[in-house]
Amino acid sequence: MTKNQTVLEGKVASRDTLRATPGGVATLNLTLIHQSTQREGRAEVAVEVEMNAVAFGELAEEMNSVKVGDNISIKGFLSRKNRFSPMPILHITQFKFS
Amino acid sequence: MTKNQTVLEGKVASRDTLRATPGGVATLNLTLIHQSTQREGRAEVAVEVEMNAVAFGELAEEMNSVKVGDNISIKGFLSRKNRFSPMPILHITQFKFS
Repeated sequence: MTKNQTVLEGKVASRDTLRATPGGVATLNLTLIHQSTQREGRAEVAVEVEMNAVAFGELAEEMNSVKVGDNISIKGFLSRKNRFSPMPILHITQFKFS
Repeated sequence: MTKNQTVLEGKVASRDTLRATPGGVATLNLTLIHQSTQREGRAEVAVEVEMNAVAFGELAEEMNSVKVGDNISIKGFLSRKNRFSPMPILHITQFKFS
């Protein structure tokens, strides 16, 4: 399988209510704010990123306990938001409170 | 260190010439197109994403051999593009031809 894996830890900046797709699949959208220091070559750089993320199905229902302000760690893959927007969004396949 | 790690494999869709920052650090910007199938819950989903990426310093010089159309695998961390744009960009810390 062509590699596409992201692990990102951060604070939940916003979250939507648990919704369902037209097909009835539970969907949870949230935004994660990440701040850290990362090594880049010989430098330590301050990093900030705000990432849109989405969970589907049972994972979305499980993540319904997540509140704004919670620190979580998510694992998943990057995908374009939809047909109309190339903005990358992180599809969550695993999460834990951190 | 707060986790922020991405591994992404894909085809180089575009690349800029090797530039230097005002401080004289080599900089290489490129765009990677990734297409794959990923497991999401019980489903296999078709995934496509176009990711902006940047390398600095010696790694940028090393990556100057990369051509449009090459398949590469990159490892790095996500960061907002700059002060003005929250668009996520992948800062490359390792790369290989794949």
